Amino acid sequence: MSQSFTLTLSCPDRPGIVHGVSGAILNHGGNILDSRQFDDRETGRFFLRVVFEAEGDGAGLEAAMRDLAAQFAMDWRLTPSDRPVRTLILVSKFDHCLGYLLYKQRMGELPMEIVAIAGNHPKDSMTVSQIGDIPFHHLPITRDTKTQQEARIKALVEETGAELVILARYMQILSDDLAAFLSGRCINIHHSFLPSFKGAKPYHQAHARGVKMIGATAHYVTADLDEGPIIHQAVEAVSHEDTPEDLVRKGREIESRVLGRAVGWHLAHRVFLNGARTVVFGN
Amino acid sequence: MSQSFTLTLSCPDRPGIVHGVSGAILNHGGNILDSRQFDDRETGRFFLRVVFEAEGDGAGLEAAMRDLAAQFAMDWRLTPSDRPVRTLILVSKFDHCLGYLLYKQRMGELPMEIVAIAGNHPKDSMTVSQIGDIPFHHLPITRDTKTQQEARIKALVEETGAELVILARYMQILSDDLAAFLSGRCINIHHSFLPSFKGAKPYHQAHARGVKMIGATAHYVTADLDEGPIIHQAVEAVSHEDTPEDLVRKGREIESRVLGRAVGWHLAHRVFLNGARTVVFGN
Amino acid sequence: MSQSFTLTLSCPDRPGIVHGVSGAILNHGGNILDSRQFDDRETGRFFLRVVFEAEGDGAGLEAAMRDLAAQFAMDWRLTPSDRPVRTLILVSKFDHCLGYLLYKQRMGELPMEIVAIAGNHPKDSMTVSQIGDIPFHHLPITRDTKTQQEARIKALVEETGAELVILARYMQILSDDLAAFLSGRCINIHHSFLPSFKGAKPYHQAHARGVKMIGATAHYVTADLDEGPIIHQAVEAVSHEDTPEDLVRKGREIESRVLGRAVGWHLAHRVFLNGARTVVFGN
Amino acid sequence: MSQSFTLTLSCPDRPGIVHGVSGAILNHGGNILDSRQFDDRETGRFFLRVVFEAEGDGAGLEAAMRDLAAQFAMDWRLTPSDRPVRTLILVSKFDHCLGYLLYKQRMGELPMEIVAIAGNHPKDSMTVSQIGDIPFHHLPITRDTKTQQEARIKALVEETGAELVILARYMQILSDDLAAFLSGRCINIHHSFLPSFKGAKPYHQAHARGVKMIGATAHYVTADLDEGPIIHQAVEAVSHEDTPEDLVRKGREIESRVLGRAVGWHLAHRVFLNGARTVVFGN
Repeated sequence: MSQSFTLTLSCPDRPGIVHGVSGAILNHGGNILDSRQFDDRETGRFFLRVVFEAEGDGAGLEAAMRDLAAQFAMDWRLTPSDRPVRTLILVSKFDHCLGYLLYKQRMGELPMEIVAIAGNHPKDSMTVSQIGDIPFHHLPITRDTKTQQEARIKALVEETGAELVILARYMQILSDDLAAFLSGRCINIHHSFLPSFKGAKPYHQAHARGVKMIGATAHYVTADLDEGPIIHQAVEAVSHEDTPEDLVRKGREIESRVLGRAVGWHLAHRVFLNGARTVVFGN
Repeated sequence: MSQSFTLTLSCPDRPGIVHGVSGAILNHGGNILDSRQFDDRETGRFFLRVVFEAEGDGAGLEAAMRDLAAQFAMDWRLTPSDRPVRTLILVSKFDHCLGYLLYKQRMGELPMEIVAIAGNHPKDSMTVSQIGDIPFHHLPITRDTKTQQEARIKALVEETGAELVILARYMQILSDDLAAFLSGRCINIHHSFLPSFKGAKPYHQAHARGVKMIGATAHYVTADLDEGPIIHQAVEAVSHEDTPEDLVRKGREIESRVLGRAVGWHLAHRVFLNGARTVVFGN
Repeated sequence: MSQSFTLTLSCPDRPGIVHGVSGAILNHGGNILDSRQFDDRETGRFFLRVVFEAEGDGAGLEAAMRDLAAQFAMDWRLTPSDRPVRTLILVSKFDHCLGYLLYKQRMGELPMEIVAIAGNHPKDSMTVSQIGDIPFHHLPITRDTKTQQEARIKALVEETGAELVILARYMQILSDDLAAFLSGRCINIHHSFLPSFKGAKPYHQAHARGVKMIGATAHYVTADLDEGPIIHQAVEAVSHEDTPEDLVRKGREIESRVLGRAVGWHLAHRVFLNGARTVVFGN
Repeated sequence: MSQSFTLTLSCPDRPGIVHGVSGAILNHGGNILDSRQFDDRETGRFFLRVVFEAEGDGAGLEAAMRDLAAQFAMDWRLTPSDRPVRTLILVSKFDHCLGYLLYKQRMGELPMEIVAIAGNHPKDSMTVSQIGDIPFHHLPITRDTKTQQEARIKALVEETGAELVILARYMQILSDDLAAFLSGRCINIHHSFLPSFKGAKPYHQAHARGVKMIGATAHYVTADLDEGPIIHQAVEAVSHEDTPEDLVRKGREIESRVLGRAVGWHLAHRVFLNGARTVVFGN
């Protein structure tokens, strides 16, 4: 029976990559359904995402790709298209983003298996989310226990085999150590249109400056706070009538949508790191 | 010296197309810069657009493509990426779309050579356009002279070698004969969010119905008025405060932008006909 | 202690309305916080919404308004601004709009008291909604039982004292009788950008026509199906890659948001009927 | 014959303002067509804009307003609604914003009389604008002649009686002295979504940071560069495919539209200064 695979790769650009990859797929009986590529003329790096149908488990192609990868110095990955990604979600008191992700997952729109939710507030403070049977870990944090709490998060990632960690309005600043540990496999939602209004209380900053649009930014976590590669951003118009509290309320919708979309693209292997930026084959 | 070419093709989907095409390009020393494809699972038709750099005039590849095309039953076209398209623009009294197209062309954003402008109103009624030295043909029309007027348009297309005809708010209904003559190489802008408000005075219809958004639609001309394949659409919010005249005013901006974007995609060979619909590799 | 009141009125336009109303509010110790008005030059009708703070229960002003209303032939209403509106929600199998409304209500963004939910599918088919303790009435319907089922809906409206009925993707066509019963106090969400794609399966119609944007429309229910006064509309871009199923998925978000916003404006007394259209003092 | 007037005012909030103003208008035979107000709860300041029709030249009302203004400590202005505002436009090499403003003015959408255009590049470098008979002043500038050049700008403002100065991509940094001279009557367009990417080459900064949206900001000029009160902002989505040059191109459209809209609101007396922010009664 035929199934769908997603192949993603990046490598230095040179002639023959597409021909080599499409030949390997063809030789293993695959039929390409979708293909997107980007050639970064600035850096000379090439990015490719191919979705194809083929019989079997992809093992033969895997071997062929190893040869190609060596020849072209590729970073690459081949995965069944519908394999759910093991995901850990971190949350604090405000659970609107969590609720949105759970809703999307339940509707079949986000192919992830939520292996655990962890929060620094107790489960019963989650007012808008249907957590159901998903394991919830209450990991309170104080200035004095930060090291131990982060150790528990690391342990949780390892025990659950989480491939992706989502900071769904997790309002704690990660230590450099934890940020490095999660680097490249952790998505955060920042409640401003970065790089404007970094840091705390961005909606209050936005109100004070009198901007006419507010926004949200989903980005990969790196050690440099609020400076990680941006995956997605969106904005909404606001007016002089909006108080900081109105901005907070309007922002909740944008935050949820921006995070949901970024996570969806990540799960579909549509996002590549490209230095301090990303390549996103969105849809 | 190397130059950029754009190859576009469509054919019944089957394995090997991408491999064949990428092989042909590779064999002729080409390096792929951009590639987009779409496999219409409903109809089994495959669409491909490839931009690549190569030495020479592309003649060798042209021959190779002829073989591939026969093998895969392709409709295809190979063209230097920056070749300006010979374009005829038809206009009536309102020349805001014409003015917008001329501005974009002058800014270097629309690679077209405007071989002529023709209008059923005289040149000096064009109040907002900088026509400059472009030949302007005044082709007045009455109920009795419609056949002759349309014959002059056809003659103009042939004399100028126009590859594209743009109806830039040309407010005459084309005869079936002229529509068929221009089919597939003529873009019209309709001042509504089709299929809502077909026919005359769409902004007045929209006002009467009390809609909260108005729109514009750029589509290829076919014999079936207002039913041609849609290339692009956009909308803008309106309110109870807007009179029909306000809608007309707000609509002018949307019409211009939607038409400009559709024309830009057409000129970049990003639009394919797919039955009554289009495939648009937009950017 | 002072509290906030919302006064809404409409009447034939003539000089002195604002002066009269602002005088009445001033005489009863009120301070105007917000005021919006619209003078429909086409129909000669005037619409006003005033929010003000005053001591007491508004009874004195109520008497003064009765005199003014007689003098100016006003339709008017004075209500404490924060009084929750008693609301009945009807739903079918798809409960994403219901889930969204419940979420917004729980977040404090929709000042309504949900007195009951009724569905023609059983409660346990509601997969994404947190119904909690809200009474759920399973009112199955067949061709033969339509009359009886609608009688039960009417009874439910009366028993619960519902002031507003929301059709949250309630997929049954109301009889003329029920539509008339609910007229002016019932909001429906239609999953198309009306007046395009009336009737059944609008996303499939949109796909077949090849439109480049899909939308949703919230409107008041009237006897004339899909022709009720429009409160709010929004759209989202789609592409040739989107299957009808993709449109359904993308549409769910727009439907929820459009319905939620329309309901929010209704609850804040920001929407007026104006013949077949609406006046919306949005925010 | 009756004509339309626009009254704008701001003052400390207290009861009776609307009643007083509507009474004054009523007593002088006026009929209110449109009214918008905003009560800034944070600062206690009240803002009002009223459009009304009345016979005569408004002189009687002017006297009545003087009394009210004294009583309520109002900043106020009464002006015929259709009086064109005398406007000076400054431009540098890129004239797309200038071209857009001239187009809008010619279409009757911007009620301004362009008394002069001044540029630090010669008139014949204006490639996309139809300057026609409008006086064009070439005011070249070097580091050494900045003081004299700015003196000529000041003189131009005074000789022409310009009430509004528009910096239509005028790429010179104003001295503190000129900025103070123009304060409150000068609108600038900044080609970024402020406060992101202040200063030079914002599109290049945006590209380097990898943002997914770019924007433009229209603001009043104050001595503090890029910190003036914001009137309007808009954004457009961009992607990894966009080079800095693509951002420049896409940005031109946003800049023009944002500036055009801000100028339109200013001309219609819809914008109020409110400390470091603005109140905009947009439409």
